[in-house]
Amino acid sequence: MTALPGEFALIARHFRPLAGPGALDLTDDAAVLAPPAGRELVMTVDAMVGGVHFLPDDAPGDIARKLLRTNLSDLAAMGAVPLGYLLTVSLPRGTPEDWFAGFAAGLARDQTEFGIFLLGGDTTSTPGPVSLSLTAIGTVATGEAIRRSGARPGDALYVTGTIGDGALGLLAAQGTLADPAGWLADRYRLPRPRLNVAHYGLVSAAMDISDGLVQDVSHLCRASGCAAEIRAADVPRSEAARAAGEGYLPLCLTGGDDYELALAVPPATEAALVAHAAALGVPVTQIGGFVAGEPMVRVLAADGTEMKLARGGWSHFP
Amino acid sequence: MTALPGEFALIARHFRPLAGPGALDLTDDAAVLAPPAGRELVMTVDAMVGGVHFLPDDAPGDIARKLLRTNLSDLAAMGAVPLGYLLTVSLPRGTPEDWFAGFAAGLARDQTEFGIFLLGGDTTSTPGPVSLSLTAIGTVATGEAIRRSGARPGDALYVTGTIGDGALGLLAAQGTLADPAGWLADRYRLPRPRLNVAHYGLVSAAMDISDGLVQDVSHLCRASGCAAEIRAADVPRSEAARAAGEGYLPLCLTGGDDYELALAVPPATEAALVAHAAALGVPVTQIGGFVAGEPMVRVLAADGTEMKLARGGWSHFP
Repeated sequence: MTALPGEFALIARHFRPLAGPGALDLTDDAAVLAPPAGRELVMTVDAMVGGVHFLPDDAPGDIARKLLRTNLSDLAAMGAVPLGYLLTVSLPRGTPEDWFAGFAAGLARDQTEFGIFLLGGDTTSTPGPVSLSLTAIGTVATGEAIRRSGARPGDALYVTGTIGDGALGLLAAQGTLADPAGWLADRYRLPRPRLNVAHYGLVSAAMDISDGLVQDVSHLCRASGCAAEIRAADVPRSEAARAAGEGYLPLCLTGGDDYELALAVPPATEAALVAHAAALGVPVTQIGGFVAGEPMVRVLAADGTEMKLARGGWSHFP
Repeated sequence: MTALPGEFALIARHFRPLAGPGALDLTDDAAVLAPPAGRELVMTVDAMVGGVHFLPDDAPGDIARKLLRTNLSDLAAMGAVPLGYLLTVSLPRGTPEDWFAGFAAGLARDQTEFGIFLLGGDTTSTPGPVSLSLTAIGTVATGEAIRRSGARPGDALYVTGTIGDGALGLLAAQGTLADPAGWLADRYRLPRPRLNVAHYGLVSAAMDISDGLVQDVSHLCRASGCAAEIRAADVPRSEAARAAGEGYLPLCLTGGDDYELALAVPPATEAALVAHAAALGVPVTQIGGFVAGEPMVRVLAADGTEMKLARGGWSHFP
């Protein structure tokens, strides 16, 4: 048998072991997939670029896991269960095989943790930084996908976990913020997708917080046609984020990379949602609520005055 | 209503009009999709990088159409009908809005031509060259996806269209090969996905030729567990490719970017396949056949001796 050229040998060695049902061992032009009976597919895609979404020196396994987890966070926001993913990897020529091995090992680890497998991919060279994309496929019971558009005045606004660790973690990873326990940098490098929390019937709307709490809640408001108020003092911050000082509060409210969920919760299901999240071991905190009005977000300081934030969140093209 | 930050305004202006059913107007975290009754989904992804897969000065509309069409070519190889796609676009900061407009116009044009629509995407910045990925979703009758693994000794080897125009077209676009009518450069910039040709029951195996005829047929052999012979003189070349001279024959046999199909055709269905392709207006040509033996490809010159090719095709990581 003739030897495979380098590209295909690399794929066979490192990516084929990650392939699951429908991936056809990555030897065909495409994967074949049908959702289980009574369920629909949910699909999302994210790109990540070295120097923009991760640091060039980050371990390849961590980069792989962040890429997978940011997409799982989108599935979580839709109330979907992860199923499989497709991947593109564009790398500088001469990238050592160790990099592929570490990247694939990170994927393998998270495949086990999240019960997901590789469906297909494409590996190319690039004269620029490492550029990645991942398309995640999940399933949801037919008609039960959770939307951004369902929030109604009177719903409470909840978030999962703590807010701001991602943005502070980038500073910590860059060495410009103290982070003695390494908590912040770890949260920047390794998001925790909040799967199963946004449960159909318990929340009226959900989205994942990836570009900054205030901006992302404003997207929720826009889709739902109502306004929101956030009480800044109630926004949960980690011990490490509080240790950075109150001067970092605006950054916590507007910085990216949290990958927590924002949830609109009707009064009738609030107790059930809190119990559901507690059973999953995921902290949820009410930080405000939805009110009638033009779609916008008001952030209130502890004394009730409105906080004036220079920007609501991250935009790649200001 | 508060104004959208630049990134989201760009998406709303240029990409939202491309969204179809299930895309939820691109305002949610993910798309929702179910295949029609009796059909499965077929999924494939390709990445394209400026300076690697297209020339930095290529028109954005052409880049968009090439990105879409290379993926449609993969669906064509599986015998699938296009349904929708997800997209990532990583661009240098400061990319003018004209670029977005041209890129979206190219997508809109091909959406109409191929009956496909946008399901979701992600737009980011990059410090490197334009980096794109596209995940294409198609459908096929359940159990009728065409595989690479079905070729059997005795099957004829056919290709669609002409071979080598993509590789010669790159030289033409770079100005190192005469191309008076612009045919070659056009074929490099704008692949013609051969949808509907690889029809279940008429072919035993198919794949698209993207990395070079010889290498891609060797993938088919490897998946099918047999060998193939290609008669070089029978490989169809365009008038423009023949005008370049016989010195370019090896490049035609091994260069990338053809996006034609290689088909394994059993004797019993050969006449029907030829008639089927003719009805679609797609030229098909027999260039050899499959034989028993270790998976490898022998290319025979006009006098029956074996052509020694320095390489079988393109690899990003030699």
